[in-house]
Amino acid sequence: MTRYNQPVDAAQIPRFAGHSTFMRLPAVTSAEGLDIALVGIPWDGGTTNRAGARHGPREIRNQSSLMRRVHHVSKIAPFELANIADAGDLQVNPIDLMRALEEIENGISRIVEAGARPLIAGGDHLTTLPVLRAVARKAPLGLIHFDAHSDTNDSYFGGARFTHGTPFRRAIEEGLLDPKRMVQIGIRGSNYELDEHDWAKAEGIRIIYMEEFTARGPEDVMAEARAIAADQPTYVSFDIDSIDPSMAPGTGTPELGGFLTREAQAMVRLLQGVDIAAADVVEVAPPFDLGGMTALTGATMMFELLCIMAENQARKRGKT
Amino acid sequence: MTRYNQPVDAAQIPRFAGHSTFMRLPAVTSAEGLDIALVGIPWDGGTTNRAGARHGPREIRNQSSLMRRVHHVSKIAPFELANIADAGDLQVNPIDLMRALEEIENGISRIVEAGARPLIAGGDHLTTLPVLRAVARKAPLGLIHFDAHSDTNDSYFGGARFTHGTPFRRAIEEGLLDPKRMVQIGIRGSNYELDEHDWAKAEGIRIIYMEEFTARGPEDVMAEARAIAADQPTYVSFDIDSIDPSMAPGTGTPELGGFLTREAQAMVRLLQGVDIAAADVVEVAPPFDLGGMTALTGATMMFELLCIMAENQARKRGKT
Amino acid sequence: MTRYNQPVDAAQIPRFAGHSTFMRLPAVTSAEGLDIALVGIPWDGGTTNRAGARHGPREIRNQSSLMRRVHHVSKIAPFELANIADAGDLQVNPIDLMRALEEIENGISRIVEAGARPLIAGGDHLTTLPVLRAVARKAPLGLIHFDAHSDTNDSYFGGARFTHGTPFRRAIEEGLLDPKRMVQIGIRGSNYELDEHDWAKAEGIRIIYMEEFTARGPEDVMAEARAIAADQPTYVSFDIDSIDPSMAPGTGTPELGGFLTREAQAMVRLLQGVDIAAADVVEVAPPFDLGGMTALTGATMMFELLCIMAENQARKRGKT
Amino acid sequence: MTRYNQPVDAAQIPRFAGHSTFMRLPAVTSAEGLDIALVGIPWDGGTTNRAGARHGPREIRNQSSLMRRVHHVSKIAPFELANIADAGDLQVNPIDLMRALEEIENGISRIVEAGARPLIAGGDHLTTLPVLRAVARKAPLGLIHFDAHSDTNDSYFGGARFTHGTPFRRAIEEGLLDPKRMVQIGIRGSNYELDEHDWAKAEGIRIIYMEEFTARGPEDVMAEARAIAADQPTYVSFDIDSIDPSMAPGTGTPELGGFLTREAQAMVRLLQGVDIAAADVVEVAPPFDLGGMTALTGATMMFELLCIMAENQARKRGKT
Amino acid sequence: MTRYNQPVDAAQIPRFAGHSTFMRLPAVTSAEGLDIALVGIPWDGGTTNRAGARHGPREIRNQSSLMRRVHHVSKIAPFELANIADAGDLQVNPIDLMRALEEIENGISRIVEAGARPLIAGGDHLTTLPVLRAVARKAPLGLIHFDAHSDTNDSYFGGARFTHGTPFRRAIEEGLLDPKRMVQIGIRGSNYELDEHDWAKAEGIRIIYMEEFTARGPEDVMAEARAIAADQPTYVSFDIDSIDPSMAPGTGTPELGGFLTREAQAMVRLLQGVDIAAADVVEVAPPFDLGGMTALTGATMMFELLCIMAENQARKRGKT
Amino acid sequence: MTRYNQPVDAAQIPRFAGHSTFMRLPAVTSAEGLDIALVGIPWDGGTTNRAGARHGPREIRNQSSLMRRVHHVSKIAPFELANIADAGDLQVNPIDLMRALEEIENGISRIVEAGARPLIAGGDHLTTLPVLRAVARKAPLGLIHFDAHSDTNDSYFGGARFTHGTPFRRAIEEGLLDPKRMVQIGIRGSNYELDEHDWAKAEGIRIIYMEEFTARGPEDVMAEARAIAADQPTYVSFDIDSIDPSMAPGTGTPELGGFLTREAQAMVRLLQGVDIAAADVVEVAPPFDLGGMTALTGATMMFELLCIMAENQARKRGKT
Repeated sequence: MTRYNQPVDAAQIPRFAGHSTFMRLPAVTSAEGLDIALVGIPWDGGTTNRAGARHGPREIRNQSSLMRRVHHVSKIAPFELANIADAGDLQVNPIDLMRALEEIENGISRIVEAGARPLIAGGDHLTTLPVLRAVARKAPLGLIHFDAHSDTNDSYFGGARFTHGTPFRRAIEEGLLDPKRMVQIGIRGSNYELDEHDWAKAEGIRIIYMEEFTARGPEDVMAEARAIAADQPTYVSFDIDSIDPSMAPGTGTPELGGFLTREAQAMVRLLQGVDIAAADVVEVAPPFDLGGMTALTGATMMFELLCIMAENQARKRGKT
Repeated sequence: MTRYNQPVDAAQIPRFAGHSTFMRLPAVTSAEGLDIALVGIPWDGGTTNRAGARHGPREIRNQSSLMRRVHHVSKIAPFELANIADAGDLQVNPIDLMRALEEIENGISRIVEAGARPLIAGGDHLTTLPVLRAVARKAPLGLIHFDAHSDTNDSYFGGARFTHGTPFRRAIEEGLLDPKRMVQIGIRGSNYELDEHDWAKAEGIRIIYMEEFTARGPEDVMAEARAIAADQPTYVSFDIDSIDPSMAPGTGTPELGGFLTREAQAMVRLLQGVDIAAADVVEVAPPFDLGGMTALTGATMMFELLCIMAENQARKRGKT
Repeated sequence: MTRYNQPVDAAQIPRFAGHSTFMRLPAVTSAEGLDIALVGIPWDGGTTNRAGARHGPREIRNQSSLMRRVHHVSKIAPFELANIADAGDLQVNPIDLMRALEEIENGISRIVEAGARPLIAGGDHLTTLPVLRAVARKAPLGLIHFDAHSDTNDSYFGGARFTHGTPFRRAIEEGLLDPKRMVQIGIRGSNYELDEHDWAKAEGIRIIYMEEFTARGPEDVMAEARAIAADQPTYVSFDIDSIDPSMAPGTGTPELGGFLTREAQAMVRLLQGVDIAAADVVEVAPPFDLGGMTALTGATMMFELLCIMAENQARKRGKT
Repeated sequence: MTRYNQPVDAAQIPRFAGHSTFMRLPAVTSAEGLDIALVGIPWDGGTTNRAGARHGPREIRNQSSLMRRVHHVSKIAPFELANIADAGDLQVNPIDLMRALEEIENGISRIVEAGARPLIAGGDHLTTLPVLRAVARKAPLGLIHFDAHSDTNDSYFGGARFTHGTPFRRAIEEGLLDPKRMVQIGIRGSNYELDEHDWAKAEGIRIIYMEEFTARGPEDVMAEARAIAADQPTYVSFDIDSIDPSMAPGTGTPELGGFLTREAQAMVRLLQGVDIAAADVVEVAPPFDLGGMTALTGATMMFELLCIMAENQARKRGKT
Repeated sequence: MTRYNQPVDAAQIPRFAGHSTFMRLPAVTSAEGLDIALVGIPWDGGTTNRAGARHGPREIRNQSSLMRRVHHVSKIAPFELANIADAGDLQVNPIDLMRALEEIENGISRIVEAGARPLIAGGDHLTTLPVLRAVARKAPLGLIHFDAHSDTNDSYFGGARFTHGTPFRRAIEEGLLDPKRMVQIGIRGSNYELDEHDWAKAEGIRIIYMEEFTARGPEDVMAEARAIAADQPTYVSFDIDSIDPSMAPGTGTPELGGFLTREAQAMVRLLQGVDIAAADVVEVAPPFDLGGMTALTGATMMFELLCIMAENQARKRGKT
Repeated sequence: MTRYNQPVDAAQIPRFAGHSTFMRLPAVTSAEGLDIALVGIPWDGGTTNRAGARHGPREIRNQSSLMRRVHHVSKIAPFELANIADAGDLQVNPIDLMRALEEIENGISRIVEAGARPLIAGGDHLTTLPVLRAVARKAPLGLIHFDAHSDTNDSYFGGARFTHGTPFRRAIEEGLLDPKRMVQIGIRGSNYELDEHDWAKAEGIRIIYMEEFTARGPEDVMAEARAIAADQPTYVSFDIDSIDPSMAPGTGTPELGGFLTREAQAMVRLLQGVDIAAADVVEVAPPFDLGGMTALTGATMMFELLCIMAENQARKRGKT
């Protein structure tokens, strides 16, 4: 018998029954006692095109009822290795952007201070900025970043510096990320400018374009990614639009020709050993989704990340 | 300051945030201390055509986040008048029909024994039978029944006596309902047989066909309905297919030419004063819904019923 | 035991099982021996905006599995009164308009010559023209026409005289309809020209606009319609866009503010006694439908018409 | 031959062909020379629940290709009476709310200063506030307001004073509207507080709840509305959620039991004679729409308003 | 000129015309004289999560109108090689599980006894159990099984032994399948328990997980599969959820990261030479489908299987 | 500062704002002064199964707002290299096929005579025939053709020689294409006849079936394609159904197992250096699309083609 929170068992209670929490785990109101806190950030105030990621956490929760308890490849049983719960949604103002950024930072800080590592369901990609402010308090983090877009633009609409196209530029400027330990995988799609990625590259970010990924495959790419992250604390940010729009249509800025889900799953599985300080799955926008497919993709990627994070926590505990 | 459970306030926390419970009320695991228990029965094992009502409670919960606190016509503020909570879903076997009927009866019995009146989100219409077994323990109840179908058939498929087309025949046979105190409103659609409703009429059930409703209007019809129910304990069963399929497409057996939602709302508001022992909203089948419209209709009808039930509870308490 | 074709009984075999025919009737390859032939015309070559009515017969058949055997208001049991079957789809060329018109005329002629009266699932409204050529061989017919549009324009696109906006002008010119015995009900929507309906009115067609219908109601309007049709052979053409787009969204040229389905049903029921030589339900365009709602509306209107036609046939037979 | 802009004729060029402008009118870049400017405000930064009205103008334009040239009831031919064009979309910042309000005010001011009256496709209902700032420069306007919600709340989320639930409170505070000349029609749905509408009523706003409308009908209600507006300049604001969700599902805050579209059309037609300074149709949110139905409803309501405004302009010109 | 049943030719009659049968073949009421009987089993009583496969046969028939007569790779022309027809749907009780299992067994037995090999459109995966009871009367069969799930669990919901998660365990226990001649391909997704597949492996079933398939490719995997099946009679069961949810979203238990359709097609083509006693395509659940994509996938996989089976029949006949 | 037309910048004006033109370019009424004219042909009169491609240009325009200015792989900035605009839709009769073919030929001739190369958004594949009549005036062109179907049939429906299944046979017969310089890539799906492609092969067309493509990959296949086209003027025709239906569901004749979008993108990128006289993207049928995915795919493929064509124009100009 385990001492940790366990999900409702779908072999006992059907998946469509009961309250909808992340992976059918207990809902808690504080992260105290948790190793990993699953938390939603229902906010999309940084979205420049199609909003809707504010509805992401609810639908990811809904689809996550399809998750079970053991990873069939790695054999990781996350709920045996770590204490995990659904820590609810952060309370975020949908109207006032600057206040929203504060609320997100404060909400995540509370989780971090309680000793839990957050695994987040966004929200648009600007949510990652205040999350990093909370998580990278002591030192800049590394970043393994799956995305169709680099999100390192400077500003939009004549001076808007906080949008879902700018978080990683801001994070570097604020010293939250170490660009030398950053890798972006899956970048593609037409660009605004010829020199659009020059700033990022000059800072030291390694950009692995989609075409390079297709040529090299998951193993090779992830070996490089792990080397970049090194064995320092690292943030993993998974933008759902890194996946092909046919497999994740419910997102704000779809770009043709992305990862197959099985490629994305393979890459996350190869994160084993990385010291993941926190992680997120962002840009799931249910109003544009088809049949819950994107939310299911988001929930599955969260489960993949959860397995890595739980194994990591257990290993660390064992070391001490 | 109220002593009762209060819903999350959408003027403070956006409707899309937080766990999805009925009307954003607290989730409880026991009905102890409640006046009214909102409960889901995610089961559709009695469905003869298009299944899907098993997913009803989840989507009704989801859409019920649009409800607020005060009824704009009656001025009833249900959460001030009664202690109400989301009592969760009953745990029901989706594979074994006879066992499911027992589980539903047991689950509702526990709520009734705790002193709460259940307001149920189905589930298909066969769920009403075991609910009645739990609620009508002492004496047969009256029934005010909104539906496109009489649901008083004897059997289907060469002898299946328990389907969503037979619950009220079984309930009368089992002495759970008093047919002289039963009224069915909105009945319409083509029939299997010329004498299809003869049994029901011979038992004393008053059938008000859709065409009679259209001619008479809500006030007149409900005056008769209240007289039939008299001031004895009465069950209210609201089949979502009583409403026109254009306003409630997500259901298993749609029939053209039903109630407008505003007519249905007007009728439920005219239940004021009826002693509602328990009530349900059934046959919301999300896989056939369009844009959540049917679930929103179901959630709104639950709120309309809740206002009547809460006012009733408060008045009774006042009397003692 | 009846001597006529009977539909599969949904109380014995579920509605989703078995081949999909009109009202679950036997499929026949000849109209010999039938009183009424249900026939599909999967063609929309006359459509000026959104095509799709070519898919109408298949989806109307699909949804017609929800029909049962007895009309709940009139108590007509059509399958007891007349021999009825699914006579299949006409074989119509989707590419060559003039040839299609011939094929439709020939196909319906075969049915008429076999002694059956056709009840047709279109197809766009231009299908009615060749049908009339087959049905009105001996003398011009009267017309009771439910539609948002008068369909009496002269031509489109610089001279196209055969489109779904012109059939009734052509039919009058060809002597197939007697304009003095024509009534159009439900006409509405913005017009191309101020004098758009002047030709029709000058010919003697009675146009009852939607607003007049709303003011007068079904009984009054249909009394006038029956008087116009008199007791001579009459064609009934039901364009699904006469119904409000919220209840019949799957059509090529939706116009806001149409009939409620229950109003349309009431009107068709008031056709009792009219000598319906043939009838159609047209402009159901499944690619634009939502959840099968329009096809269900079409199937139900066919059942309403079928009851009138069957009762009419039986009465005539009785007379002889 | 007319001297005014004319729409592309659907009897010559199919509705699906050509660039999509409001009612197939020419696109212009300045309002100079126009009597009425059709203008889009693609912005929903004030939305508290489901965003998406930012996509409204594009889809309303798309569906407006179904409009023709002459109103079939009033016989108004707007394009003969006034010079009308598609003046494009205002350029509005989607990220910075306060700047967006300025941009909207400036954009509408340019139109008003050019001598044209704006007929606006929103956008959420907060867009009406900066529009009023531009239109009510000289004196407070009257308001005829169709809506499910009063939109006179004070603030949300702990102090957010500019949301789509607050525009009319702000407008009164700013002296843009004369509350004694304001009428709100169709208000319904549950309320946050018992006293929610007390402020509005104390200011002198006449609220006609949905139930009062149902009892009295369009003629009686609009006679009162015209009397309230008197013959002073008046703004007409049409929130699409005043219409029943079955007919306008694509909106952020649907409320059951609203207007039938034909009731809404009848009411707008009864605005004849009102001096409409400007008007809007707001809260059409395409990501939540079904089959373009809500956008078609929005486009049709714009055409209804356009006819009234054009006739008004022509009458005024005639007077001088 | 062939002596066998031929499909309607889409180059003569459009695909949207005519009754909807499997691959536009004649509908027959007995399997007498057929080599291969295409048969539907519209039943999903074993489904533990999202029901809907009961609607599978109808929609697979609908989409199968896109099939033509000759396989473009193998050049097999199945309708030249074998006599094939649409043998209709089995009549199965949707309410009573144990009776349904009997009805399915009896229905398939009649086909087998008539000398035809069944190619089945399910239905959920529990349908395979009674089919095996009918087909494996003489000796246990081998099984080539494409699926995301092993479906060898013991029971659900506290003792339910007959669900769509248990058929192959039951079939082995009943001696219908020889586990040594069983291979499961494409298995993936999180597991309930660490030892979930231990029973299957202990019995001798070869499980080829998705990741092994991705590494080895269709040719290598199918060479092994053919070796396992040997040249004994073998059943082929194709669960549509083996295919990626982006290509087959309409199913009850989607699992990310499945086969591309072209991989699945390649594998079935490599079944040439296997002695297929019967085959099925199961778990197509239209209420969850998107645009008919899953039904089209199901219909195409049936055509792929049909080609193999027809070639097999012809070869066997040639041998004798 | 460039001298050429520039698209609206999404970093300044949101993508959802403003009139919807191809890639947010200026709309022009004449092709004078353009190097490349983006033009829509909203017509599907040659469609034998599911119509809807008439709506293609509007939705491709809509989704093309997601394109930016620089190709991220080739670094081509098309709007810097060539003068490009949205030249609107051709005006085509939807009712009269032969007249439509003339109108298309005339419309494209005007563009060609103005000196611009057309890049076309269809329309069904029969549109390519009259386009070729306009473009191949001087000499037969080569053809690089991406499609699931060869479209070289002779006739349909008893003699219809002009359908979307016959354009390339007609074009060869008319001397518009040189079959020796033709290559078709991606052909797949079941065939009507065993010898279906024999005519095409006998003429000299190189057919690369899907299975050959899968085995060889984009580089190898396109090296052969470029060799076939040689350095003579070549037409590129991209039928959206060449792409897998999961990525391009909105088309009339979907065939399982097509290109991944990233494979299609890779192939078009390898057209660099080919002298593209004109190109089209056809068979995008929005009524069958899911969430705009197919239109986005069509728009992206147009952008890919545009980059090649613009670079080609610039290189040619440089040479002179």
